[in-house]
Amino acid sequence: MIGVAVVGYGYWGPNLVRNFWEIPGACLVAVCDLRKDRLVAVQNRYPAVHVTDDFDELLRNPRIDAIAIATPVAAHFKLAMKTLMAGKHVLVEKPMAASSDEARRMLEEAARRRLVLAVDHTFVHTGAVRKMRDLVQDGLGDVYYYDSVRVNLGLFQRDVSVIWDLAVHDLSIMDYVLPERPVAVSATGMSHIAGEPANIAYLNLFFESKLIAHIHVNWLAPVKVRRTLVGGSSKMILYDDLEPSEKIKVYDRGVTLNDSGEKVYQMLVGYRTGDMYAPHIDVAEALEIELRQFVECVERNKTPTADGNAGLRVVKILEAASQSLAERGRVVELEHMRRIA
Amino acid sequence: MIGVAVVGYGYWGPNLVRNFWEIPGACLVAVCDLRKDRLVAVQNRYPAVHVTDDFDELLRNPRIDAIAIATPVAAHFKLAMKTLMAGKHVLVEKPMAASSDEARRMLEEAARRRLVLAVDHTFVHTGAVRKMRDLVQDGLGDVYYYDSVRVNLGLFQRDVSVIWDLAVHDLSIMDYVLPERPVAVSATGMSHIAGEPANIAYLNLFFESKLIAHIHVNWLAPVKVRRTLVGGSSKMILYDDLEPSEKIKVYDRGVTLNDSGEKVYQMLVGYRTGDMYAPHIDVAEALEIELRQFVECVERNKTPTADGNAGLRVVKILEAASQSLAERGRVVELEHMRRIA
Amino acid sequence: MIGVAVVGYGYWGPNLVRNFWEIPGACLVAVCDLRKDRLVAVQNRYPAVHVTDDFDELLRNPRIDAIAIATPVAAHFKLAMKTLMAGKHVLVEKPMAASSDEARRMLEEAARRRLVLAVDHTFVHTGAVRKMRDLVQDGLGDVYYYDSVRVNLGLFQRDVSVIWDLAVHDLSIMDYVLPERPVAVSATGMSHIAGEPANIAYLNLFFESKLIAHIHVNWLAPVKVRRTLVGGSSKMILYDDLEPSEKIKVYDRGVTLNDSGEKVYQMLVGYRTGDMYAPHIDVAEALEIELRQFVECVERNKTPTADGNAGLRVVKILEAASQSLAERGRVVELEHMRRIA
Amino acid sequence: MIGVAVVGYGYWGPNLVRNFWEIPGACLVAVCDLRKDRLVAVQNRYPAVHVTDDFDELLRNPRIDAIAIATPVAAHFKLAMKTLMAGKHVLVEKPMAASSDEARRMLEEAARRRLVLAVDHTFVHTGAVRKMRDLVQDGLGDVYYYDSVRVNLGLFQRDVSVIWDLAVHDLSIMDYVLPERPVAVSATGMSHIAGEPANIAYLNLFFESKLIAHIHVNWLAPVKVRRTLVGGSSKMILYDDLEPSEKIKVYDRGVTLNDSGEKVYQMLVGYRTGDMYAPHIDVAEALEIELRQFVECVERNKTPTADGNAGLRVVKILEAASQSLAERGRVVELEHMRRIA
Repeated sequence: MIGVAVVGYGYWGPNLVRNFWEIPGACLVAVCDLRKDRLVAVQNRYPAVHVTDDFDELLRNPRIDAIAIATPVAAHFKLAMKTLMAGKHVLVEKPMAASSDEARRMLEEAARRRLVLAVDHTFVHTGAVRKMRDLVQDGLGDVYYYDSVRVNLGLFQRDVSVIWDLAVHDLSIMDYVLPERPVAVSATGMSHIAGEPANIAYLNLFFESKLIAHIHVNWLAPVKVRRTLVGGSSKMILYDDLEPSEKIKVYDRGVTLNDSGEKVYQMLVGYRTGDMYAPHIDVAEALEIELRQFVECVERNKTPTADGNAGLRVVKILEAASQSLAERGRVVELEHMRRIA
Repeated sequence: MIGVAVVGYGYWGPNLVRNFWEIPGACLVAVCDLRKDRLVAVQNRYPAVHVTDDFDELLRNPRIDAIAIATPVAAHFKLAMKTLMAGKHVLVEKPMAASSDEARRMLEEAARRRLVLAVDHTFVHTGAVRKMRDLVQDGLGDVYYYDSVRVNLGLFQRDVSVIWDLAVHDLSIMDYVLPERPVAVSATGMSHIAGEPANIAYLNLFFESKLIAHIHVNWLAPVKVRRTLVGGSSKMILYDDLEPSEKIKVYDRGVTLNDSGEKVYQMLVGYRTGDMYAPHIDVAEALEIELRQFVECVERNKTPTADGNAGLRVVKILEAASQSLAERGRVVELEHMRRIA
Repeated sequence: MIGVAVVGYGYWGPNLVRNFWEIPGACLVAVCDLRKDRLVAVQNRYPAVHVTDDFDELLRNPRIDAIAIATPVAAHFKLAMKTLMAGKHVLVEKPMAASSDEARRMLEEAARRRLVLAVDHTFVHTGAVRKMRDLVQDGLGDVYYYDSVRVNLGLFQRDVSVIWDLAVHDLSIMDYVLPERPVAVSATGMSHIAGEPANIAYLNLFFESKLIAHIHVNWLAPVKVRRTLVGGSSKMILYDDLEPSEKIKVYDRGVTLNDSGEKVYQMLVGYRTGDMYAPHIDVAEALEIELRQFVECVERNKTPTADGNAGLRVVKILEAASQSLAERGRVVELEHMRRIA
Repeated sequence: MIGVAVVGYGYWGPNLVRNFWEIPGACLVAVCDLRKDRLVAVQNRYPAVHVTDDFDELLRNPRIDAIAIATPVAAHFKLAMKTLMAGKHVLVEKPMAASSDEARRMLEEAARRRLVLAVDHTFVHTGAVRKMRDLVQDGLGDVYYYDSVRVNLGLFQRDVSVIWDLAVHDLSIMDYVLPERPVAVSATGMSHIAGEPANIAYLNLFFESKLIAHIHVNWLAPVKVRRTLVGGSSKMILYDDLEPSEKIKVYDRGVTLNDSGEKVYQMLVGYRTGDMYAPHIDVAEALEIELRQFVECVERNKTPTADGNAGLRVVKILEAASQSLAERGRVVELEHMRRIA
């Protein structure tokens, strides 16, 4: 049994609190937020949990082994570093930090102290994304493209652009699913409200192979869309997260190349239009799976699926994409990243 | 009554032939193709129509006032120039020509001889696109973005990339619908078959205003998608060409800006989530409407909706996009184009 | 402020508890269930609430003004009568009782004692159904038909057939929405598990006018469907409860009759295929609205939207439909029901 | 090579003409219609085909071996009998005749003269329906229910009700797909236009086993629906004819019965929610397949898939359903029908 505290009881914090409250292996000791009304809400619902607006109090509490940070991204670095330096494990909301420099320092600190640093890339714990990874690794053949659309009429945010708010989901999924890491990124986008961050953006990701990836995010769309297409030489996937029961569809479609030297083009390309199937998807709540894994990692000194390295890789792309967007889509190279264990 | 000939009886030619055969005002005099089997097919179905594999014969035939060119794009320039120089009007398939230089010379030749030069941008004659133009011009407010996805498992083509094959539709629709012309373009894409043109591509179009446009085309998608989102400050449109009866949906959704100097962000952005409506769309066949207009333009010396200038504008973007794609998305400026009448 | 108790903490009870806990005006005093594990669950989540497995204890508690009954239907009558005889108000799950005789006696008891007897016809408090009622009362013209499909792979129940489990929703919605009451009902159906109640059923409802209603319910369907069509002489409605944001679509479609004596049929029937619109729907939680209304009715001695009369009308149809189903669809007349106030 | 004539060039006749024109093995000799304008249309499109408004002329023409009848249903009997008595084969539109008595006499006449009598149940030649039959015969287990919805804003017809116009499709599909024949039928419905046939109807079909079938047809629906659910003990099918590429979906879903004598209900019923797959469907035009088969049957004296017996079985149900509808859903028994060869 490990003792846990949650910092930040805004949009996502209540989900962390509810799940930590319910999973065995974790004891939710305290919740911290700067707003009194939120602390009252916690107290009404979980009278047994200690509430405080003083973060440092958590650091001093010996019953707390790990802290989950669900504050605005700007505070991640400071709070995570304090937590690690107090010798406690960390689960931090995505994006992991406001810059790759911050993320790297968090990662190094955790490695030095042999503490668990997990990043809350929730989607990689869903049944749909895990199924997609299985399919990409075995069945799709060569991966040709990864194309994702994540748009809706979303809350405009002051502090981060739509890239940091929405594309972070796709980048964390891609990081988990694809067999290759991108080597460069470009992005275009626009802010339609003067002085505010971009509310629409398009990202291109370049790889060493012929794989090409693209992400479309938009806070100003009239309809909600959450669709990813993954094309491979053997099969293709349509992942629609809004489908209630058939989130993943696998198509036996594509072209078959004939590598003979024949000149007749119809001989070169053959079309396959076979069956489609929608595998049964495990619908267990992803966050519960993730938090159970986090507890297990803390207890047994293991590495979580989405560790600080994954968090850093995603932040580096977000950073490069933002830079590219500011320069009308200039390609920004992503230096090779050595894994920090 | 004008006399018409059609050159090219492959994929699209039969539609031109069928419509010219049926509309009043046109007399289908001859069909030309290099393949004998196709000429036999014409003769079986339209015994009254003359067939030939000799294009020059059409030029000499005084009963022919206009020639519709539905050959591969590489032949457009040569055939159109011959037609114009023989004093006959031209309707040419899209894309208008294989290069902007060719397109410009065709346009200049037609202008010099005061002949009609129409480009078969069929979509601009559909009820859905005409309705979209009406809405964009009156009701959408400032246009923020134009986003189109046109993907399916499509026939790979040897001579042109997916940009020239599919994006040409979106570019011709945008040229008709949007109040502004793009000033620059960038494109990324990939060919997944060695030695062949790109089969997937993403285009960004830049404008002087805050309008941003994006086109996704793909010959290697497992599902067919034909969806366009147009976001405006007052309303937004979803145009789904695969919907049988509700192709255009208009959403009273968006954000409302409060231009007071207040610092509180929630005061700055208000969300509107109002009604949606799907206007009744005229379902008359677009090609029939287009050909009737072409006949009228020839008879009364009028300018068609999609004239050579529209065709040239589209070809210039295709050309710039291809160039950008070859340079990993470098932004290519589109010089301002003076209208040639 | 009224004191409330909830009996039954199985499938639906937790929703009643959560909402009574949160709405102002109600004080959740106690929860009663026969299973100890459920009482423990209540205590963990709501330590301030008293738990008991002794229903009579609730009756003796002077702090409890009203009891919400969420037990299996067989127990509704006994528990509701005890509650009323103890001078307390009642909110009872749908269906209101296991027979119309029971329902009538509950209704009479409540009337005699001037206590509130509300039935939890939750759907009539949703934004979609309220909008549908507005449209039916003003805009649809003469109502021609009401057709509902409510199917999915649902939990088989031992004690009640699919009619009592699923059709009860449609009947409560129809009771609220339609301007007329049915005068007869017939039903066919089948049990595919020996010895169990019917798992698929079709109900026809007959009216004095030309209105016709039909309900299809099925526990053994591979996909979930929740769709209602309402056809009127002026407009038609499609209500799809699974649509996330466009639950109600209103179509300006139909036929227009020409009552001239002309013999030519095309003159008699004209087709209208006009616009469709999807009005914005209030998405507030229906149960919260309902419970707020219940509290207000208790406090101010008002009649709830779904009172005992509505509950009885629905039970009478369920009863008649079950009888009809057992006789291969024989039409069962519904005697006219005098309102009991 | 057989000589063919088509009678009736209204809604469906042109499809018969076009297909007979194109398939090898058939020579389209003549087209007959009472309206001159239609004959002119035939002549313009098929100058080689003889046109006439005199049906008896076809009977005398020795080049004509078979006649396809695509007139209103009231004329089927008279024209088919004349054709058979002239020693020619017949293909007749569905429904085969206006009464089962007529259908039986046509069938007997054809049997006596050993002529082919085919009924144009087009759907049974589609890839989707053939796939559905394969699945029902092998893979679905016991068939529990067959439920079909076929509604849209359809042309009102003066001479026949919506049952004869739309349900005829479902009945012909069921006749082909299901392993059992219905033993009784009931129907309810309504005419919303005074003096006209019913425009909405619901049919129940009863079988000796636990199979139950239901058909909903409606000419006055705001949206077009063509959906059939077939539930079996092992698998279930959703057939949506409006889906462009996934018309048939097969679900590995249902309940599994445990025939142990245990009392615990959860032990009795287990839920299966497995994969779904959508088999590739042959998209060849059904009418072409059907006419090729008809030609082969004439040439080799074979029995077509939809012969006069199938046509008669469907007409008997239509007749019984109409009778039931007139009596508010009284169950009408279907006497057992001996096959007439």
